[in-house]
Amino acid sequence: MSVGLSPPEYLLIVKGVRLATVAAGIKSNQQSDLVLLTFDADTHCAGVFTRNAFSAAPVIVAKNHLAQTSPRALLINSGNANAGTGAHGLRNAQQCCALVADAIDCAENEVLPFSTGVIGEDLPMGKVEAAIERLLHELAADAWLQAANGIMTTDTIAKAFSRGLQLDGTDVTITGIAKGSGMIRPDMATMLAFVTTDAAVDSAWLQHCLESAVDISFNCITVDGDTSTNDACILAATGASGCRPLDGNGADSEAFQQAINQVLIQLAQMIVRDGEGATKFVTVTVQSAATPAEAKQVAYTIAHSPLVKTAVFAGDPNWGRILAAIGRAGIDDLDIDQVRVYLDEVCIVSHGGRDPTYTEARGQQVMEQDEITIRVMLNRGAEQAKIWTSDLSYEYVKINAEYRT
Amino acid sequence: MSVGLSPPEYLLIVKGVRLATVAAGIKSNQQSDLVLLTFDADTHCAGVFTRNAFSAAPVIVAKNHLAQTSPRALLINSGNANAGTGAHGLRNAQQCCALVADAIDCAENEVLPFSTGVIGEDLPMGKVEAAIERLLHELAADAWLQAANGIMTTDTIAKAFSRGLQLDGTDVTITGIAKGSGMIRPDMATMLAFVTTDAAVDSAWLQHCLESAVDISFNCITVDGDTSTNDACILAATGASGCRPLDGNGADSEAFQQAINQVLIQLAQMIVRDGEGATKFVTVTVQSAATPAEAKQVAYTIAHSPLVKTAVFAGDPNWGRILAAIGRAGIDDLDIDQVRVYLDEVCIVSHGGRDPTYTEARGQQVMEQDEITIRVMLNRGAEQAKIWTSDLSYEYVKINAEYRT
Repeated sequence: MSVGLSPPEYLLIVKGVRLATVAAGIKSNQQSDLVLLTFDADTHCAGVFTRNAFSAAPVIVAKNHLAQTSPRALLINSGNANAGTGAHGLRNAQQCCALVADAIDCAENEVLPFSTGVIGEDLPMGKVEAAIERLLHELAADAWLQAANGIMTTDTIAKAFSRGLQLDGTDVTITGIAKGSGMIRPDMATMLAFVTTDAAVDSAWLQHCLESAVDISFNCITVDGDTSTNDACILAATGASGCRPLDGNGADSEAFQQAINQVLIQLAQMIVRDGEGATKFVTVTVQSAATPAEAKQVAYTIAHSPLVKTAVFAGDPNWGRILAAIGRAGIDDLDIDQVRVYLDEVCIVSHGGRDPTYTEARGQQVMEQDEITIRVMLNRGAEQAKIWTSDLSYEYVKINAEYRT
Repeated sequence: MSVGLSPPEYLLIVKGVRLATVAAGIKSNQQSDLVLLTFDADTHCAGVFTRNAFSAAPVIVAKNHLAQTSPRALLINSGNANAGTGAHGLRNAQQCCALVADAIDCAENEVLPFSTGVIGEDLPMGKVEAAIERLLHELAADAWLQAANGIMTTDTIAKAFSRGLQLDGTDVTITGIAKGSGMIRPDMATMLAFVTTDAAVDSAWLQHCLESAVDISFNCITVDGDTSTNDACILAATGASGCRPLDGNGADSEAFQQAINQVLIQLAQMIVRDGEGATKFVTVTVQSAATPAEAKQVAYTIAHSPLVKTAVFAGDPNWGRILAAIGRAGIDDLDIDQVRVYLDEVCIVSHGGRDPTYTEARGQQVMEQDEITIRVMLNRGAEQAKIWTSDLSYEYVKINAEYRT
């Protein structure tokens, strides 16, 4: 089940990036589960990572390596998160880097490891080691779709997005892949997402560019309110397009930032559209709030409410549940007479109760759609927030009750 | 579905309290839906109410009346919450009080109204008015079980609890009823709960006694994290037992407080045991925290995690999800090497990973029980918190997807 998603179309090659994907046997179902990305020398790389205190071993190692040098390779496995694995897990993550470094002849700290899957089980290092040679043989510039498939866990569809742009007469490409479907409530970070470009980008600005884009994309989605131990988003710029280096100033940098924003928003929305058990794609917009934080707080309270999410699943315009969620979102001096709530363009709540123009039939019509916008106007300021989320279905319970069986 | 609950046993009469329950036709299924409690003169009454900004009309009226005088009657309807009904709803709640006041010959502000059920629909005042006469005829001292049934909505079983105690040689009784099954995450208040005693209790201390008891009972439960617009808990002391008035000092007051605590904890746990779709009763205990707030925060993060709740439903010792919840609970300087997690007495996590003594078989054995304790030791202080919650099942989704159909 996914909402309005189709398999990725043709994905653009990014000069300076090569990829390989194999089935190493980490997943029990023989599907592909190990992905290698290699970068040309002089690639700059930025990253944001989960703020979960129980960060997985690969997150700790990747952050550490990224702080020391520019990476030449990323090794990503699915099927096992290497999280909650203590000192042993750290050694395994480090060993992954050592194996790749040996194979492609770089330093160990020039490799970043990423893992996603079941928490608390040791990574099968024998299987990883046995697969490295095969990965080397597979490396190719046009293997994006296979890589997008190789990083999936409970995802039902591969997530990838490309776009090109011209910077000062030079053709530049951006291609990103992402995975994520459950345990989705990024906090200053994301699910696994790997975005590359052949633009040349100044190192310091690259990090800023990534953080700005994450803030309005991956940090605005939630499926179940659970922040993963393994969230990471990487943006790598190889510079192989030959464009002039971007440093955050001027129209080219602006255009590049917009393009990165677009790619990350697309990838983030794909994660929600493929949210575990999702049958609806819901945009929650909170407007005219006193502060950005308060807008986000109200939006997340609605987006996390199991009662709102089950009503959306049922296609039931049970606006009382939306109103109850707004009411418990923690705004102490909220004047409920000022609050207006809309389903798409249908006003459902005004003056603390049902809007006089509202009819159940009009609400029903909106709720029957696959894509719904819940819009709240607090009328107490000029700030706003937008969150994307999915509904709560039988299938969500089924997927998560049976995940390890 | 409920966990370890049977219909209430024999309930004790409380001198000075009479009750009546009828089917007024507010619910569409002809079940009882209107309950009247009357109190003798000189009854003292304390109350705590929802902090949801969208408080229902009856909550606003009840708080207002309670601040003015001591109530002689409570009128409680199920099937309609009279919430999100604006100025019209306030007039209807007021009109409920006027009807009862006329019938039993007291002042309008000596009546408190309570409503529970669907949000956003007008109370059918004609039906309420038509039922008042019948209620008067039904009034009796031993009608507690009928009243417990009359306030139910999605509850599958009536919730009531009695206990007696001797205060200075006088027999005193306490009987309480409660309802609630979904939209359960009380915040300084509760679902609907009405507790009465024939002890004589000083007015000021009665409120303190109630707040203390609510803090360790109704404020420690969660089913779905949604705080209702209609939560209220009333404690009425008629004084009809003839015991000496309690004022908070001495052994009798202490014994009374303990008894009230016990009644409220029993009622609160009944609500969780009958939580929507509940198949498991889960106690989440967080120990050795730096502050009480931090302990509660970690406990609620675990108790609200849909991933933990679905794993509990499946009987799956997926401790990685517990660990991920602890990690995202917002303790910035958490040292994960210090954290220990237990399922009942089985240690599952230590030193940031799986405890060396843990086996899947031992975890499985605990998870197969109907009642489970998840215990977290943070090892950073001396504070603790205990929260009671239920699991997340197919049935929860079904109940909430089909609630209005």
